[in-house]
Amino acid sequence: MDTPAPPSQKKRGRPRDLTRDGMVLAATLDLLAERAYEQVSLDEVAARTGRAKTTLYRRWGTKDDLVLAAVRSMGYPPEIDELPDRGSLRDDLIAVIDSPWLGGASRRLTLFAGLSAASHRSATLRDMVATQVTQPYVEVYRRLLIRAVERGLLSTSVVDRVASLAAVIPAMSGLSFAQTPAGPRRDDFVSIVDDVLLPACGAAP
Amino acid sequence: MDTPAPPSQKKRGRPRDLTRDGMVLAATLDLLAERAYEQVSLDEVAARTGRAKTTLYRRWGTKDDLVLAAVRSMGYPPEIDELPDRGSLRDDLIAVIDSPWLGGASRRLTLFAGLSAASHRSATLRDMVATQVTQPYVEVYRRLLIRAVERGLLSTSVVDRVASLAAVIPAMSGLSFAQTPAGPRRDDFVSIVDDVLLPACGAAP
Repeated sequence: MDTPAPPSQKKRGRPRDLTRDGMVLAATLDLLAERAYEQVSLDEVAARTGRAKTTLYRRWGTKDDLVLAAVRSMGYPPEIDELPDRGSLRDDLIAVIDSPWLGGASRRLTLFAGLSAASHRSATLRDMVATQVTQPYVEVYRRLLIRAVERGLLSTSVVDRVASLAAVIPAMSGLSFAQTPAGPRRDDFVSIVDDVLLPACGAAP
Repeated sequence: MDTPAPPSQKKRGRPRDLTRDGMVLAATLDLLAERAYEQVSLDEVAARTGRAKTTLYRRWGTKDDLVLAAVRSMGYPPEIDELPDRGSLRDDLIAVIDSPWLGGASRRLTLFAGLSAASHRSATLRDMVATQVTQPYVEVYRRLLIRAVERGLLSTSVVDRVASLAAVIPAMSGLSFAQTPAGPRRDDFVSIVDDVLLPACGAAP
């Protein structure tokens, strides 16, 4: 899996965009986290933000264009700019799962499940989600594992397997969504850290 | 994750259904493996099977109903009836990946990616895919791991983690699909066996 070039500017802690466009894009992400893509509409976005539907159409063209702009406005996971460093590999992995990015684990996982669903409709959206979400997260986990090897916390044998190991947690989103209407849960990811990833790395369970 | 009741009748080696209905359902699965759900149409199924579109509508009602009937016609993974037993845990895991079910690994994985995409549109289809595909596969991997513990090939510590461990390979379908338009590849699954699952079980890499 290719690793993305890290974004050039710091996105961490970026305050919520309170411009009029920023509020429209934030409302679009809210809707994507709340309901199926088919039920997301420019009407609803207009109603939530108090802007005219015609204005939204003039600015973004179609719902797909608006969703693409909203996803682009998310930026990248902040951990791609600064890895967590809390004293143990497990704590660092959990810190990524518990990141406040996009409203915290619960909203973020629900939003990603919605984006995953919408990605099947559009190659452009799928590529954008891969570039902005999946690949950066695989890269964050890759760096955490390599750093743990460099610090002598993990065996060097992890290096040869790091591409597969780094993909384990991002991969769980798909299965969880497929199995439960409520989408993936934070606890499922913690179980994968403790039951699969750390043991696969030879770390003490 | 709940485990499904095993199907009561043997589905393994069931010959392709050559009745007229069976051919329509098989053609529907072919189309689901070939293209996006939106591009699957009753017209195309009618053209491939030489049946009248009106006949298909009378028999199945809508495209969604036809797809549901086609998925139901797949049955269950044959390994749910008879676990592979080839002498090593790795060979048994690879045997599941290389199962000839639904035309072999490549077509089957592509078909599952298509069903995963379509599942976001319909809770009924999502539940059917979970019941007929995801949960049976998690159960097959769970039984293989428990049998390896019982045979003394794996530590008993695997038992407490088996729910997460058994979900690792089924979970990969989601990520692979999200990352590549071509869908998941057999080699990705083999890498997960060797790089993640076997090391996580404490098996020799």
